[in-house]
Amino acid sequence: MLQVSIKRGREKRIRGFHPWVYKHEILSFSRKPKPGELCIVRDYRGGFLAKGYINPESYISVRILTFKKEEEIDYDFFVRRISEALEYRRSLVPEDCTAFRLIHSEGDYLPGLIVDYYSGYLVVQVTTLGMEVLKEKVVRALIDVVKPKGIYEKSTVPTRELEGLPLVEKPLYGEIPERVVILENGIKFNVQIVGGQKTGYFLDQRENKLLFSREFVSEGDRVLDAFCHLGGFGLHAAVIGKASEVVALDSSQLALDLARENAALNGVEDRFTFVKGDAFKVLKEMSLKGEKFDSIVIDPPAFAKSKKVLEQAKRGYKELFLRGLKMLKPGGSIVVCSCSHHVTPPILEEILQSAAFDTRTPLKVLYTTYQSKDHPFVLQIPESRYLKCIFARSFPWEV
Amino acid sequence: MLQVSIKRGREKRIRGFHPWVYKHEILSFSRKPKPGELCIVRDYRGGFLAKGYINPESYISVRILTFKKEEEIDYDFFVRRISEALEYRRSLVPEDCTAFRLIHSEGDYLPGLIVDYYSGYLVVQVTTLGMEVLKEKVVRALIDVVKPKGIYEKSTVPTRELEGLPLVEKPLYGEIPERVVILENGIKFNVQIVGGQKTGYFLDQRENKLLFSREFVSEGDRVLDAFCHLGGFGLHAAVIGKASEVVALDSSQLALDLARENAALNGVEDRFTFVKGDAFKVLKEMSLKGEKFDSIVIDPPAFAKSKKVLEQAKRGYKELFLRGLKMLKPGGSIVVCSCSHHVTPPILEEILQSAAFDTRTPLKVLYTTYQSKDHPFVLQIPESRYLKCIFARSFPWEV
Repeated sequence: MLQVSIKRGREKRIRGFHPWVYKHEILSFSRKPKPGELCIVRDYRGGFLAKGYINPESYISVRILTFKKEEEIDYDFFVRRISEALEYRRSLVPEDCTAFRLIHSEGDYLPGLIVDYYSGYLVVQVTTLGMEVLKEKVVRALIDVVKPKGIYEKSTVPTRELEGLPLVEKPLYGEIPERVVILENGIKFNVQIVGGQKTGYFLDQRENKLLFSREFVSEGDRVLDAFCHLGGFGLHAAVIGKASEVVALDSSQLALDLARENAALNGVEDRFTFVKGDAFKVLKEMSLKGEKFDSIVIDPPAFAKSKKVLEQAKRGYKELFLRGLKMLKPGGSIVVCSCSHHVTPPILEEILQSAAFDTRTPLKVLYTTYQSKDHPFVLQIPESRYLKCIFARSFPWEV
Repeated sequence: MLQVSIKRGREKRIRGFHPWVYKHEILSFSRKPKPGELCIVRDYRGGFLAKGYINPESYISVRILTFKKEEEIDYDFFVRRISEALEYRRSLVPEDCTAFRLIHSEGDYLPGLIVDYYSGYLVVQVTTLGMEVLKEKVVRALIDVVKPKGIYEKSTVPTRELEGLPLVEKPLYGEIPERVVILENGIKFNVQIVGGQKTGYFLDQRENKLLFSREFVSEGDRVLDAFCHLGGFGLHAAVIGKASEVVALDSSQLALDLARENAALNGVEDRFTFVKGDAFKVLKEMSLKGEKFDSIVIDPPAFAKSKKVLEQAKRGYKELFLRGLKMLKPGGSIVVCSCSHHVTPPILEEILQSAAFDTRTPLKVLYTTYQSKDHPFVLQIPESRYLKCIFARSFPWEV
C-alpha cells in the first residue's frame, strides 16, 4: 500500500483523531500516488499514524478512515462503521421520526460519504474520489446492515468536480419512489428523492424545530418563519406549538409549493400565509408596515461560505436580525441560525447582541444549540460543527 | 433626585440595556451623591437614560433598575418586577421541582438582589448598599407577590464589605425552619436554610442534572461525580439514570455528610461510594489504579475568579479533564463544567479539546449548556452568563 510520510510536528493533530492531512504537510510518498487509492500515513520517523485514501492534488490530500494499524479498509470495516453509526442513531432518534442522517462524513469517520435515511430508503452522496473508489463496498455494507427498500445515489454537489468526478444521480439498489413521506417529530413531510435539493430534505434542524415548537411557541401565537424552505419550523409551530397563524417566507416558488403541500398534508394549511420574495426586502416591508409576531425564526442559507466574506455575511445576518427584532412583541421569542462554519457561536452571539442593542430589545438567551446529533460535531474536528442556533426571549416590557 | 451625567459615547451601552455605569464613565453629579441613594442617569446632553442607585466609590458606580422615565422605584415597582420574575419561573420550572431562583440580580434587572425559593420559604441575599436601602420595599413586595411561609436573609457574601455593609444572617418574616426538604426533578434534597453554604443549595445545575441523568447515564452504569457537593449529579444518576454505582468525591466532609444523607433520603445510599479528598490527587490515584467509568461529571468550583488567573485556571481544568478522560470507557459520557465567567464557552471547549487530543479520546459534543434558565443569561449583559457545561460522548472504539 502507498505510504505517506508527514512532516515533523504534524503528527500531533492526526494522533488526536483529526482526519485530514493537508497537502503542505506531506513529507514524501513511497511511490507516485494514484488518485483515490488507499494509503498508510506515517510520521516523519516512519511510525504508523492512520489509514485513509489520497487525492494528491487536493488541498486536503489524505482523508483518514481508521487510526488502527490492524484494521483493513474492506467490506467488514464498512459494516462495523455503519453498524456503529446506526446504533448511535437508534439511541437518539425517537420513534416519531422516520428520517435521519445515518452517515455524516467526517462526523462518523467516513469522510466523503453522506447517507440519509427516509422511511426505509437511503439516499447516498459521495463527495470524494477516494470514497467513490470504495463505493461498491459501502453499498453492499449498507444493504446488509440497514436492509433498506432501496438506495438512491444523489452525488450532485459541485465540489465533486474539484475531485475530478462527474455529477451523478441514479438508483443503486431496489425500488426508488420519486417521493416519500417522512415523519419528523410526528409531522408529515413530503420528501423529493428523485430530483429536488440536496439529499431531499434538511434533517439537521430536527431537534431545534422540536425545541422551538415546544418551548418557544404558545397556543394562538402569530409566528414568522423566514427562509421557510419546505416549511419545517412553521409546520412545527402550527402542529406542535398550536400557533394560530404562520407567515412563511421563501424566495423559491418550488419550496413554497412544497411547503404548502406539507401544510395541507398535516391539515393546517388554513393557518399559513406564504410569501414569496427576497427576505431582506420582505422583512423590511413587513417591519415598516408595523407587523408584529409572538415568535420568529430566521434560518438563512450560509452567507459566509469562506472566511473572506465573513464581514459581509455578518452585516447580512445583522440586517435580518434587526428586522426580526423590530417585529418581535415584548415577551416574544426569537430563534436565529447560521449554518456557516465560519460564523462561530460567539460570532453569532455578537451579531444578535449588536442587533438587540440597536433595536433596544433586552433578550434572555435560553439555549445555544448546534445541528441535530445525527450530524455529529466531533470536538477534534472543529470543521464538523456548522449549524448554530440561539434561542432567546425578550423581556415582557417595552421602553 | 440625584442626577448623574455620563460621558459622550457611553450612553450607547446603557441605551442597549446594560445596567451598569462604571466610575470612569461619569461626567458629573448634580450634587454630592449619598452612597446608596437613587439617581437618574443622563447622557452628556442631559437626555434621560435610566434610573438606578449609586455607590460613588464602587467601580460599578450606578446599577440601573429601570430604563423607563415614568417608572418610580417604589413598592409597586418591586411588585411588578417580582411578579414578572415569578411568572417566568412558573413557565419554566416543572411541578417536580419545588426550589428555584426567583430573582437573579442583574439577570432580572434587580441588581444587588438574589432570592431563592425553597418549598415555600424564601432566602434573600442583598449584595449592594443601594439594594440594602430598598430592602424594606423588596421584602413587602415579596410577601405580597409570593406569599411565602417565611423569609430568611442570608447576606453573607464577602463582597458586601466592599460596599461598606456587614455580613448578616437573620429571619425577616414568618417562621424559618433550620432545614427544608426540596424536590429537584422529583429527587429529595435536604437544604440547610440557617447556616450552610451560599443560600443553601446550588440551584443553577437543575436542568443540566436532568439532561445528564436522562441522556448520559444508562441503567447499570458506573458513574463518577467529581466535586459532588450535596450529591446533585450523582443522585440524579442513581435515581433517574438508574446507575448501579456512583463514586462521589468532595474535599468537604460536611458536604459529603449531607450528600450521604440525601442519598439515604432517596433510598439509594447503597449505590454510593463517598470519597473525601482533593480532586486533583484523588482522580490521579484512581486513574493510575485503572478505574473506569461509563459516565463522568466534573463540576469544579470557579478556578478563574479573575482574568489574571485564567491561564492557571485553564491548566487546572485541563488536568482534571485529562484524568477524567483517562477513566472514561469507550462509548462513555463526560460532562465538564466551569462556573467562571472568564472561562467562556470557546475556552472551555478548547480545554476539553486539548485534553481529548492528549488522551486520544475522540469525542462527540452533544450539547453546550449554561446555568439553568431561572438564572437568566441576558445577552446585553455578558457578565450574566457564568456557568457553561459541555456534554460529550466518546466514540465506542479504542486505538
